Amino acid sequence: MFLKNCWYVGAWDHELIDGKLLSRVLLNERVLLYRGESGKVVAVNDRCPHRGALLSDGRLEGDAVRCMYHGIKFDGTGKCVQIPGQELIPPKMRVRSYPVHEVGHLVWVWLGDPAKADVSKILNLPYMTDPNWKGLPGYLHYDANYLLIVDNLSDLAHLAFVHTNTLGGSEEYAYVSKPASILKNERGYTLERWHTNIDPPPFHKKVIPNKHDKLDRRNRVNMYVPGIFDMATLFAPAGQGAETGAAVPGTREYRNCQFMTPETDTTTHFFWAYLNNFEGSDSTISRSLLDSLIEGFMEDKAIIERQQKTLEEDPAFESQMLAIRADAPLVHFRRTLSGLIDAEQGVAAAVGSPAAVG
Amino acid sequence: MFLKNCWYVGAWDHELIDGKLLSRVLLNERVLLYRGESGKVVAVNDRCPHRGALLSDGRLEGDAVRCMYHGIKFDGTGKCVQIPGQELIPPKMRVRSYPVHEVGHLVWVWLGDPAKADVSKILNLPYMTDPNWKGLPGYLHYDANYLLIVDNLSDLAHLAFVHTNTLGGSEEYAYVSKPASILKNERGYTLERWHTNIDPPPFHKKVIPNKHDKLDRRNRVNMYVPGIFDMATLFAPAGQGAETGAAVPGTREYRNCQFMTPETDTTTHFFWAYLNNFEGSDSTISRSLLDSLIEGFMEDKAIIERQQKTLEEDPAFESQMLAIRADAPLVHFRRTLSGLIDAEQGVAAAVGSPAAVG
Amino acid sequence: MFLKNCWYVGAWDHELIDGKLLSRVLLNERVLLYRGESGKVVAVNDRCPHRGALLSDGRLEGDAVRCMYHGIKFDGTGKCVQIPGQELIPPKMRVRSYPVHEVGHLVWVWLGDPAKADVSKILNLPYMTDPNWKGLPGYLHYDANYLLIVDNLSDLAHLAFVHTNTLGGSEEYAYVSKPASILKNERGYTLERWHTNIDPPPFHKKVIPNKHDKLDRRNRVNMYVPGIFDMATLFAPAGQGAETGAAVPGTREYRNCQFMTPETDTTTHFFWAYLNNFEGSDSTISRSLLDSLIEGFMEDKAIIERQQKTLEEDPAFESQMLAIRADAPLVHFRRTLSGLIDAEQGVAAAVGSPAAVG
Repeated sequence: MFLKNCWYVGAWDHELIDGKLLSRVLLNERVLLYRGESGKVVAVNDRCPHRGALLSDGRLEGDAVRCMYHGIKFDGTGKCVQIPGQELIPPKMRVRSYPVHEVGHLVWVWLGDPAKADVSKILNLPYMTDPNWKGLPGYLHYDANYLLIVDNLSDLAHLAFVHTNTLGGSEEYAYVSKPASILKNERGYTLERWHTNIDPPPFHKKVIPNKHDKLDRRNRVNMYVPGIFDMATLFAPAGQGAETGAAVPGTREYRNCQFMTPETDTTTHFFWAYLNNFEGSDSTISRSLLDSLIEGFMEDKAIIERQQKTLEEDPAFESQMLAIRADAPLVHFRRTLSGLIDAEQGVAAAVGSPAAVG
Repeated sequence: MFLKNCWYVGAWDHELIDGKLLSRVLLNERVLLYRGESGKVVAVNDRCPHRGALLSDGRLEGDAVRCMYHGIKFDGTGKCVQIPGQELIPPKMRVRSYPVHEVGHLVWVWLGDPAKADVSKILNLPYMTDPNWKGLPGYLHYDANYLLIVDNLSDLAHLAFVHTNTLGGSEEYAYVSKPASILKNERGYTLERWHTNIDPPPFHKKVIPNKHDKLDRRNRVNMYVPGIFDMATLFAPAGQGAETGAAVPGTREYRNCQFMTPETDTTTHFFWAYLNNFEGSDSTISRSLLDSLIEGFMEDKAIIERQQKTLEEDPAFESQMLAIRADAPLVHFRRTLSGLIDAEQGVAAAVGSPAAVG
Repeated sequence: MFLKNCWYVGAWDHELIDGKLLSRVLLNERVLLYRGESGKVVAVNDRCPHRGALLSDGRLEGDAVRCMYHGIKFDGTGKCVQIPGQELIPPKMRVRSYPVHEVGHLVWVWLGDPAKADVSKILNLPYMTDPNWKGLPGYLHYDANYLLIVDNLSDLAHLAFVHTNTLGGSEEYAYVSKPASILKNERGYTLERWHTNIDPPPFHKKVIPNKHDKLDRRNRVNMYVPGIFDMATLFAPAGQGAETGAAVPGTREYRNCQFMTPETDTTTHFFWAYLNNFEGSDSTISRSLLDSLIEGFMEDKAIIERQQKTLEEDPAFESQMLAIRADAPLVHFRRTLSGLIDAEQGVAAAVGSPAAVG
């Protein structure tokens, strides 16, 4: 059960170039995404209502798409505009279209009730388009439910064990560092974790000049429903009071933006960008970080996809998992999301079957 | 649900050479087909009733087959004739045999009630054995229900879009040509479609001398339950009255014979031959046409197998597809077949459970 | 449904070297097997109760194992001994451990009620550790229920047809040889089969000097629940009274030890050793026999895995198979095992729901 009335990332904007007809399953629905010749992005159901051929196997014609099985043509709103061999077009012959909007180099799609689609609700992370923040766009496909990825990101202690030699740096992180604050809110949570007087972790060491100087590290996470992770990481020269808020010269910062969109109940589209504010004009740093992050994500992916298999082998385990103290953010997030889904379903149920309410 | 009391093509005759024990699933039943040493073709269930080993993994002995797990031997009627280590052969130890008959280089099998198997009901397409019609036998395996292939063949407009550069020739075919007549009957339909003053489509152009002369094209389709397609195609020099029935010199004809046999609910054996009457002794033409047809069928196969996946993803879509005018033959065919299956099942139900009838 | 209260082979002892964390599904449960640094073998459930990561993807620490997702550590009894970032360890945080014991180079695991685990009940085949018996340990994985392998071993007539050119030697074996005796017992059966004045079968011929002398062959099988096969094979120079019990000079013997452990309902771990008493210090014989046996097992595997598919395609066939006289041991074995499972389930049901008994 997914939250339907919210915006999900459907694609990077650069995926829709050269008239690409991109077929992508989002929340179990097969959606066709493309940029029409006018520049407008279109999102419609990818199944021709005539005999079920994929429109994405069809042909772009202006802002319209033609099914290449029997030639039926639909405009960018999903309306049928031509059936070869007959004049009359029955009104039922149309495909569902979805509200779609571009923000932050991302194409956002609304799978829920179109009347509720409000583009002002799209999460705008300013560094995604700020030229002072550099980085390369990434995509990974997960054979796992998207919430297992959210779970993973919700306990930074996993950095210590899963990513010791890549993104973490030492197992000490799990024992010494402490979440300084967890702020729960109605759409997720914010948490902050400091780890002071440390060696730079491997991914950071590769892109800095003074590789042996001690540093203070801060990770500040914002997690938003349905599954957006925004982490501000800071590395300051150690012992100069960064933790107390001092502006320490030589500080370097990162923005870790991750967008989890359910493909199906058991698979996920994972869009991400890892941005830095110190690269200048040398793209070597962005490319090194792209490699480092993929290396780290692969460590997560192995564990998370194995979790998915474990849950498929024994679905009862889902409700038997034993929480530890560090799971507080995870538990809050899942509870928050469930509440929103229940509310949405409740409203839907009430609207759909009034008799059952009174 | 398949129509059981009818003949299905189980194999090409040339598949049963050199004592081949051919295991083939037909209508969800695993059938062993072979030509005994006497020349007689045998069709029996391929499962040894002792422990379930495949008889097709066994050994041909005369007209009999021996299971090579524990050595039990069955004759061509399915009767057990030897059990190593014991004298008595219990009458229950036998395999089901199926009526089988050869017509037109094809091996026809009857999966229904053997008492109703009438070989005079086998469709005999005379050009399959007429030496004036040349062509090479073909086979393809489809990961799709056989009726999706029948559907495909029922709307010739797909030639325009799917096969523009192979069998069709131009998209104009979908707009300009018209089914001149559709004759519905109790076993299927006949339809005819003319397209006049056209360039030869690519597959035909490859095998004719005057590649730039305009032609009149006629496709006349006979479709028969459960899934046999017989199309007579004619190309006559344009403008000389072929459409009105004139015998135009230089006319070339094809016979397109396709036999769809369900393997399972979601897969199909597709036997076909594409015959021509102008080849003479030069087999280059048959070989070119074999290539062209395979190229065209691959275009269909991609669409049809994708349709199958779409229907498996959302079985409800089967009853939601929106028909267009060109689907009249398809609709009639499916309705005809359903009626025959219902009638067959009705009789079966009545025989099987008389209490439920009165 | 498996017999739970009995010992199953989980691994060869040599599989647990160098700190290997061996993940192996036994009777549908994922078990982690390892040898702790103290030398003790540990068997615990392989799923971390926190978030379901595999402990076998973790790290051995002494006799304990640490989950490398969030660092939770469990000792060899399954007790949690550390949770990074918190002091208190809730008693519920533990993994199930299984009784485990080494006998005959094999690691035996008890998946049933731990209170009933009695190591004296482990089948000890003395030649498995006797230096006079030489041989190499083997393992194969079967995509088939383990009882199909037991069935296979229960009718030696299959040697004639499946293994004519490897382990059997001639089809005559099925017709001429006779089970001299079948002794049924409460845990399985014993049977003996002589075949006299024969050429040595191919696997034996390869490892003996006088390859053309006639031999008398005896196979004596002990089959034990849940699935252990122990066959004593003897080849004596022909015509010197071996069948009547005489000690014939030049006799060579084999011990064929096979241990079938269910992995899942449809897959099996197959552990085996083929031992001989005439090799001396020349390991060529063991290596030749290893090859010969694998060659023979592959012949079985093809048939047995195909049987499995047949049964999955049509589960009703399981109860429709037609027994022949040679199936008497098979029928007795399956009935015995079913009785033991029913008794175990009955007790379990009575204990679990007393109200249902009175």
